[in-house]
Amino acid sequence: MKSLAVALSLTLIALGVSAHAEEGVQITPAGSTPTLIGNARNFSGQAAVDLKAAGDSDKLAGVGMVTFMPGARTAWHTHPDGQLLIVTAGKGWVQEAGQPRREIKAGDVVWIAAGVKHWHGAARDSLMRHLAIAYMRDGRNADWKELVSDAQYDAH
Amino acid sequence: MKSLAVALSLTLIALGVSAHAEEGVQITPAGSTPTLIGNARNFSGQAAVDLKAAGDSDKLAGVGMVTFMPGARTAWHTHPDGQLLIVTAGKGWVQEAGQPRREIKAGDVVWIAAGVKHWHGAARDSLMRHLAIAYMRDGRNADWKELVSDAQYDAH
Repeated sequence: MKSLAVALSLTLIALGVSAHAEEGVQITPAGSTPTLIGNARNFSGQAAVDLKAAGDSDKLAGVGMVTFMPGARTAWHTHPDGQLLIVTAGKGWVQEAGQPRREIKAGDVVWIAAGVKHWHGAARDSLMRHLAIAYMRDGRNADWKELVSDAQYDAH
Repeated sequence: MKSLAVALSLTLIALGVSAHAEEGVQITPAGSTPTLIGNARNFSGQAAVDLKAAGDSDKLAGVGMVTFMPGARTAWHTHPDGQLLIVTAGKGWVQEAGQPRREIKAGDVVWIAAGVKHWHGAARDSLMRHLAIAYMRDGRNADWKELVSDAQYDAH
């Protein structure tokens, strides 16, 4: 299944708003890129994505600011070449399959290595926002799996 | 000349706080990484760097939040594989050699293509903060040149 980020990238390239220009210095002004809503296959609850850069190649990562409403989270997924998260607001959780969930909060930086099955999202009682830098391999930067059930989300 | 980011990366790797772990999910908590001050060879005025991820390889970019006090700016430089800036506070300038300087402000995204000589920094009357994602090639992500003179900085 194609990742949301890849699908978003293709949409934004079609709109001409990719931030990875071929030459020179390109400015994409604030507010010129529409907020996109995470789809229900890959997210539980409400998650909004403001894409900052398309993942144009295996060198140039897909970059997006993701805002999770309280209780919202990604599905379980892996990244073929890893992902860096920089939490910029609120608090939430990240969980690696087979491990306890761990709290993350504004200012934390999270590195998710290639191939690690995991999810991330907001806490029950707080939104969470992070910038996500997802490295590309063979044209994709995520492989999506099943949704995180309420029982999985609330377990600790 | 080695770039500041590369030097910082090596420092932080030595401190064990690189965000690019080999395996699993690694959390670097808020406040655990010291702020570093841009050196006077590569910056005019006061610029502070909070490194978020070391550029460990030609795949994994160097990522840092850079805060420029009013009037502060980088030296002229190029990036061997390009750099993405996400402006998160204030306003400032970016200038490509041979072109007029252009204003950038919070929310703008700037892509600087490989090999383009340029500088970026704060406005005279405002700080500017941006996240910088600088792609690595052959162990470096910037090639530094001469400082931006006051006459160059103020020209428009």
